[in-house]
Amino acid sequence: MTPFTVAASITKVEFSQKLKQACNKNDSLLCIGLDPNPNLMPEDIGVFEFNRQIIEATSDLVIGYKLNFAFYEALGDDGWKVMKKTVEAIPEGLLSIADAKRADVPNSATFYARAIFSLGFDSLTVNPYLGQDSIEPFTSYKEKGTFLLCRTSNPGSRDIQEIKTPEGKLFEFIARKAGEWNKYGNIGLVCGATCPEDLELVRQIQPDMPILVPGVGAQGGDLKLTLRYGLNKEGQGLIITSSRQVIYASREKNFALKARQVAANLRESINGIRYSRNR
Amino acid sequence: MTPFTVAASITKVEFSQKLKQACNKNDSLLCIGLDPNPNLMPEDIGVFEFNRQIIEATSDLVIGYKLNFAFYEALGDDGWKVMKKTVEAIPEGLLSIADAKRADVPNSATFYARAIFSLGFDSLTVNPYLGQDSIEPFTSYKEKGTFLLCRTSNPGSRDIQEIKTPEGKLFEFIARKAGEWNKYGNIGLVCGATCPEDLELVRQIQPDMPILVPGVGAQGGDLKLTLRYGLNKEGQGLIITSSRQVIYASREKNFALKARQVAANLRESINGIRYSRNR
Repeated sequence: MTPFTVAASITKVEFSQKLKQACNKNDSLLCIGLDPNPNLMPEDIGVFEFNRQIIEATSDLVIGYKLNFAFYEALGDDGWKVMKKTVEAIPEGLLSIADAKRADVPNSATFYARAIFSLGFDSLTVNPYLGQDSIEPFTSYKEKGTFLLCRTSNPGSRDIQEIKTPEGKLFEFIARKAGEWNKYGNIGLVCGATCPEDLELVRQIQPDMPILVPGVGAQGGDLKLTLRYGLNKEGQGLIITSSRQVIYASREKNFALKARQVAANLRESINGIRYSRNR
Repeated sequence: MTPFTVAASITKVEFSQKLKQACNKNDSLLCIGLDPNPNLMPEDIGVFEFNRQIIEATSDLVIGYKLNFAFYEALGDDGWKVMKKTVEAIPEGLLSIADAKRADVPNSATFYARAIFSLGFDSLTVNPYLGQDSIEPFTSYKEKGTFLLCRTSNPGSRDIQEIKTPEGKLFEFIARKAGEWNKYGNIGLVCGATCPEDLELVRQIQPDMPILVPGVGAQGGDLKLTLRYGLNKEGQGLIITSSRQVIYASREKNFALKARQVAANLRESINGIRYSRNR
């Protein structure tokens, strides 16, 4: 065994360990999407303060938090500062996901990786369209997770992701490639809850890979089928994200408490299905 | 003819007009990529001042400027401010391209579009993997241009973009879809100079669509073949971007003058080939 192989296998443990520990910490697969939309937020509250109160009210219920960069960039100059402060406010042991959906040629991707990981995130989402060499600048941060978009939750995802290739539909091909490219053991996939039958295929192709699942809640994804098809053999391996449904449960002063109630119910629904499955 | 059709055809003229005017202004297809890399820049100069001097020294030679977001985001908090000031420093009548390679589900994409266009850019690059509904939040800014990644300039682009589909390789399928999705006449394509034979296919599929061509210079793309295969019938329709080769021609105090010399030579090479072709 070469020193390189040793190093790779050590870091392989590192990221999957972090993920498993985050799942076990609160016995939860629920990830809250912190997507600040000023039109839906309570009035007279700053974005960071909004995030901080949501995190404080829910951090015993979740596997982690996902920040979609679109909403922060729309804040203008302040966006990056608010993201950095928000990541710092996430308690130790929980996961932070940069939902940035980046991808560029290798030289540029190196700068994206530096930009995003210097904000403190544990993991990020990446678009696979540019191929392996565009992914490596992210995966080479071996202790960080890289989730490749595979089957996204929007209706239009069919246009491209379902096109037939010699190796199944394009999203199936991507799921296979993700395995080939996974030399540091830190790659995951993104597969929407809005298409559970496709999630089933993705899980068959990658029995052990973590899958980030958006689309539960406002986008109408089916929780039961998501869990039935998406859980790995250990009853884990899914990160189920919900954003609008949780964080905009109320625009009143008690928004954080209301968010907590929705999050607690979601976590309970998820765990109810998870544990009944194993009986 | 419905009022909607009228409006669409007016805006169609608007973006393609802007592009044609930018091309005619300096009789140039050359676009300079302003990709600030502190390791390659002259010492003791701020990024905005670097950009400003490059623009001042080259603005009579180019069709416009392209800013790759990766390099600005890597600057941290200041990145967005520097981009905004740089776009403001680009003279009227030249094109500004946000090379952001964004894509997200429709709700989030709306926020990306707002974020990027509020910086003042005329156009941006978008990744097509999420399908039509993820593109529309960008194209619905009818006076702005949306360039879809089609065949990128990196070696790894083959991994996904060349996979066979029932309608040709994936990048050919994307080139066709771009035509279907082009209801406001403001969609363009990105096709690297590193694969001129693929550029030829893309131009055959979309005879009139503007094509943004990175990969000349540091990435080794072939200028002659790029022009032979990529020009439209009017000898235009290409935006040929060069970054490192131009802006890092020198690290000395006279870097802007050196950049000007390289840009002037490139413009002359391009026009030499362009005009000899028409004889």
